[in-house]
Amino acid sequence: MGSKSDLPVMQDAADVLKELGIEYEITVVSAHRTPDRMYSYAKSAADRGLKVIIAGAGGAAHLPGMVASLTHLPVIGVPVKSSNSIDGWDSILSILQMPNGIPVATVALNAAKNAGILAAQIISIADETIVQNLINYKETLKKKVEESADEMKAEQEVKRFTL
Amino acid sequence: MGSKSDLPVMQDAADVLKELGIEYEITVVSAHRTPDRMYSYAKSAADRGLKVIIAGAGGAAHLPGMVASLTHLPVIGVPVKSSNSIDGWDSILSILQMPNGIPVATVALNAAKNAGILAAQIISIADETIVQNLINYKETLKKKVEESADEMKAEQEVKRFTL
Amino acid sequence: MGSKSDLPVMQDAADVLKELGIEYEITVVSAHRTPDRMYSYAKSAADRGLKVIIAGAGGAAHLPGMVASLTHLPVIGVPVKSSNSIDGWDSILSILQMPNGIPVATVALNAAKNAGILAAQIISIADETIVQNLINYKETLKKKVEESADEMKAEQEVKRFTL
Amino acid sequence: MGSKSDLPVMQDAADVLKELGIEYEITVVSAHRTPDRMYSYAKSAADRGLKVIIAGAGGAAHLPGMVASLTHLPVIGVPVKSSNSIDGWDSILSILQMPNGIPVATVALNAAKNAGILAAQIISIADETIVQNLINYKETLKKKVEESADEMKAEQEVKRFTL
Amino acid sequence: MGSKSDLPVMQDAADVLKELGIEYEITVVSAHRTPDRMYSYAKSAADRGLKVIIAGAGGAAHLPGMVASLTHLPVIGVPVKSSNSIDGWDSILSILQMPNGIPVATVALNAAKNAGILAAQIISIADETIVQNLINYKETLKKKVEESADEMKAEQEVKRFTL
Amino acid sequence: MGSKSDLPVMQDAADVLKELGIEYEITVVSAHRTPDRMYSYAKSAADRGLKVIIAGAGGAAHLPGMVASLTHLPVIGVPVKSSNSIDGWDSILSILQMPNGIPVATVALNAAKNAGILAAQIISIADETIVQNLINYKETLKKKVEESADEMKAEQEVKRFTL
Amino acid sequence: MGSKSDLPVMQDAADVLKELGIEYEITVVSAHRTPDRMYSYAKSAADRGLKVIIAGAGGAAHLPGMVASLTHLPVIGVPVKSSNSIDGWDSILSILQMPNGIPVATVALNAAKNAGILAAQIISIADETIVQNLINYKETLKKKVEESADEMKAEQEVKRFTL
Amino acid sequence: MGSKSDLPVMQDAADVLKELGIEYEITVVSAHRTPDRMYSYAKSAADRGLKVIIAGAGGAAHLPGMVASLTHLPVIGVPVKSSNSIDGWDSILSILQMPNGIPVATVALNAAKNAGILAAQIISIADETIVQNLINYKETLKKKVEESADEMKAEQEVKRFTL
Repeated sequence: MGSKSDLPVMQDAADVLKELGIEYEITVVSAHRTPDRMYSYAKSAADRGLKVIIAGAGGAAHLPGMVASLTHLPVIGVPVKSSNSIDGWDSILSILQMPNGIPVATVALNAAKNAGILAAQIISIADETIVQNLINYKETLKKKVEESADEMKAEQEVKRFTL
Repeated sequence: MGSKSDLPVMQDAADVLKELGIEYEITVVSAHRTPDRMYSYAKSAADRGLKVIIAGAGGAAHLPGMVASLTHLPVIGVPVKSSNSIDGWDSILSILQMPNGIPVATVALNAAKNAGILAAQIISIADETIVQNLINYKETLKKKVEESADEMKAEQEVKRFTL
Repeated sequence: MGSKSDLPVMQDAADVLKELGIEYEITVVSAHRTPDRMYSYAKSAADRGLKVIIAGAGGAAHLPGMVASLTHLPVIGVPVKSSNSIDGWDSILSILQMPNGIPVATVALNAAKNAGILAAQIISIADETIVQNLINYKETLKKKVEESADEMKAEQEVKRFTL
Repeated sequence: MGSKSDLPVMQDAADVLKELGIEYEITVVSAHRTPDRMYSYAKSAADRGLKVIIAGAGGAAHLPGMVASLTHLPVIGVPVKSSNSIDGWDSILSILQMPNGIPVATVALNAAKNAGILAAQIISIADETIVQNLINYKETLKKKVEESADEMKAEQEVKRFTL
Repeated sequence: MGSKSDLPVMQDAADVLKELGIEYEITVVSAHRTPDRMYSYAKSAADRGLKVIIAGAGGAAHLPGMVASLTHLPVIGVPVKSSNSIDGWDSILSILQMPNGIPVATVALNAAKNAGILAAQIISIADETIVQNLINYKETLKKKVEESADEMKAEQEVKRFTL
Repeated sequence: MGSKSDLPVMQDAADVLKELGIEYEITVVSAHRTPDRMYSYAKSAADRGLKVIIAGAGGAAHLPGMVASLTHLPVIGVPVKSSNSIDGWDSILSILQMPNGIPVATVALNAAKNAGILAAQIISIADETIVQNLINYKETLKKKVEESADEMKAEQEVKRFTL
Repeated sequence: MGSKSDLPVMQDAADVLKELGIEYEITVVSAHRTPDRMYSYAKSAADRGLKVIIAGAGGAAHLPGMVASLTHLPVIGVPVKSSNSIDGWDSILSILQMPNGIPVATVALNAAKNAGILAAQIISIADETIVQNLINYKETLKKKVEESADEMKAEQEVKRFTL
Repeated sequence: MGSKSDLPVMQDAADVLKELGIEYEITVVSAHRTPDRMYSYAKSAADRGLKVIIAGAGGAAHLPGMVASLTHLPVIGVPVKSSNSIDGWDSILSILQMPNGIPVATVALNAAKNAGILAAQIISIADETIVQNLINYKETLKKKVEESADEMKAEQEVKRFTL
């Protein structure tokens, strides 16, 4: 992440990666304040065994795109609605609108959880255990909705309007 | 893709996949006009051996998100600036702003080429040949810029202004 | 609705339907987390005797459009300004900008009450009782404004400035 | 429609209504230049036997909302991207963002065809013939997509890349 | 104003009109909930001796434009950022983007005070007293800024940084 | 106007003023390139007998607001969609969003004609002839719409669809 | 700055200028309420020995551009998100979108600190001491990020997930 | 500039620098395709004797901000409305919204000419010749407006409407 102030958002990525059985590391690398650190981090990432990089940043968010320019690994970008952001549009467009040749896999504003799930989906193409974890995860999502529907149905017995 | 009219944009994905050595198939599946076809396509994708799905659509672009809801494979979304689009904003936001649990890896407006490269990056995490192809591809991009710089320098010999 | 968290907004639809004498049911169906439930819900809706479907969702709101793709019933979409929304633009555009062939009758952001009134207007084309209820409802709206005007006039007696 | 210059857009509504077996009338009523005409048109609409009103207008598009304020019939609004429009945003927001009590069923920018289909869906709730016409229409849409897919498959035999 | 809930904003217009010596009346007229009241209010305004009409409304704000369509008096529109508004854009565009022939003199979002001053400027073209009041008002604005500058200079004596 | 390139837009104001019987002058005054000229123009305007100032400009359009700061006359601002504009948003917001104390009566994008009509409405509050001209003008607008409606009705005799 | 209410934002510029060893003055000059003061301030600035002017304002922010039109000194504009602003867009576009010939060096919304740093960078081109101060400042920024990274690493020892 | 395709826009900067007597160099450096080239270019710029860097780029435009992170020289950013841009918003926000510590002096969309003038203004703080060139340049701008005004006055003799 570009700043420690992004941690409350980015923690969601770490949590869901853990839940899905993916090993991860988490650190602060600023494109603008530590460009050399960003260079060495991104350039060495593949050799250090990383498979996917999740980069989150706010405002004029150059971290995801610059990391993508420095590695051949897939890079997932998380637009962060930071305090100096214009409703998040700056962060979204700075991450999403990359030129031809250097993609960033952009997820929704503040959606670090989805970045984690997407990283797991990517890793799962070579790991059957993760496939199963993802299938289970989807099942859990479905069950929660069905429980909501059941609760609402129960409440509705009372509330339902009959002519 | 959601409509055959998206082909001029989406062809770029096919072309770069071929260039990077990735086998692919290309077809039309409309979320709104052929929902059953979309269901069976997305649900059977993993079993048919697909590793990544690239879905491009314009306007209220539901295809990428709905496909992502029906498979555990990574799904890449390409916002297409179709004729009925509001400067592409509708397509971008419909694809990008997915709720927690169901990510879509969104690329820039009309950036089907980047969708193809991202797909190659994903597949490369389990295929060293593709890693090498990606590294070569990045090298080509770099060389083209350096050639531009050389051309401009040559032209500048004449144009350069000296006090 | 796409999530139980939409209930505070969507309850307004239920309340005004009751007020206008329309029988209704209310439940949670998520396009992305329960796609199969959405399919069977939407496909069976006409046979179960529903006349109109009101679908509310936030963010990349695919529920209204996908339901519309799966039924010939009129579908009313309510954009919900959820917590992960970009000022509601994502939800509005995802619901409104449907492609030719599959309309969604979109109402204002968070305007579940208007969705309920619109549903009543639709049902009223075959039910004279509802016509009368709608005429009475409009009369009530008018009276409230006239009362506001009278109150303001009374307050103004004191406040009005005369040269 | 608010101006004869909207006819190229609004004609699509007429055409699809005809295709779906719905009788219609089509005229010009300007909220701003002929407010009295609008009043009498909207107030007499129900008594003249109209079931649904489709109102299309560009810029600060007040026609759909004002008509809705003057009748209990369902009103469908078509935002038109007219020459003096700001990318259509003015027209969309003027039609969509109606206050509580007076809904307008808004469709996509320039989507007069969808306005016609929505009108047919509304009328179909009391007319089984129209239900069947809508089901056939959906079937036609589906077939066109399937034909596109078949064409693309045929072309792909040649183009498909195999490693 | 379109709703009594607009009073906290619109009161500023009344206050500045009083300060500038302009007689005024203030009431609630809803374009959508009391269209007949709006008609008779706007059509009779000139005959009742009004010189300028200030109309404030939020959301799909049709009141200023519809009043302008029903009178030859100058109409000033105040976009109000109401609770159901999309950051005020809906209200601004619904008031500003009037078609050729029917202008509305639009002021800034929530700027009822400026609407009052503009009304005074309009009335001043036939009333020398108001001209003088406006000149005095401008003088007051200037003095307040100069006082701020003096205060800041005094504080700066302490704060000013000298190398 | 701020630049001679604005003339194709601003000519509409001159034309409608002539049509409505208002004497006018037309010139180029740039806030940014000729600030002194703007100062003397605006400061002397009232003494030279001008009653209303129409100021049109594109991009960061400071002319209308700065003129308003330098005179007590009512100032009408015309946002111009110039070639260097961002879809006109820059011009609209630079003119509309004036701070408290210094209003600019803003009209729609490129709506110089409406600026002329508004100027006539303002002048009409002290000139009965102009009132009559405005009433006639409104009548003309109405007749053109009615003629369109008649034409469309005639065409419709052929086109109208009957079941 | 255009108003004393901008001080909480603009103070950051003063603070960082002090930190970087640049002498400065700070005052209130309103383009709209004190146009004469603005004229004399801007026109005399170079003669008074100022090297750079930082101008911050909100809403229709004309101060930076007007100052730039009245001096040949470089002018830095700070868009301020004031209470009457539309998410800051009005201020940003009013400052940024200056016509050819009269640039304003615009920084991010509310980014008075960056305005100060930019002023120091400008002054540094003729002052080696400031160059050194800027290099030290950049070093401090870098160290803070590295400390954050170290802290996070320490916390991670506990939190890090290992399969 | 980030790509040779930006040359038609960026040439304006070169031309005005020449006109104002500033020596310059012009080349292509892509943040994303040649990150190493960008690093060495930016890091060596001050030592090579450059005083100001103008960086223009479109889409997710990271070049200006990244260059600013790698040098203490003032960096001017030119948002370029490239073919893959979303009306230029992506480029503007990516360049403008830099985080605290690393400013970019942003000019209007495509305003390379203003970037050149701003560079001259910066250099002029230590070079009296450039000051004089800038004063002359401003005088030329003023004269062109005055000529336009004279032309318009001449044409107006004929066109001017007199009652």
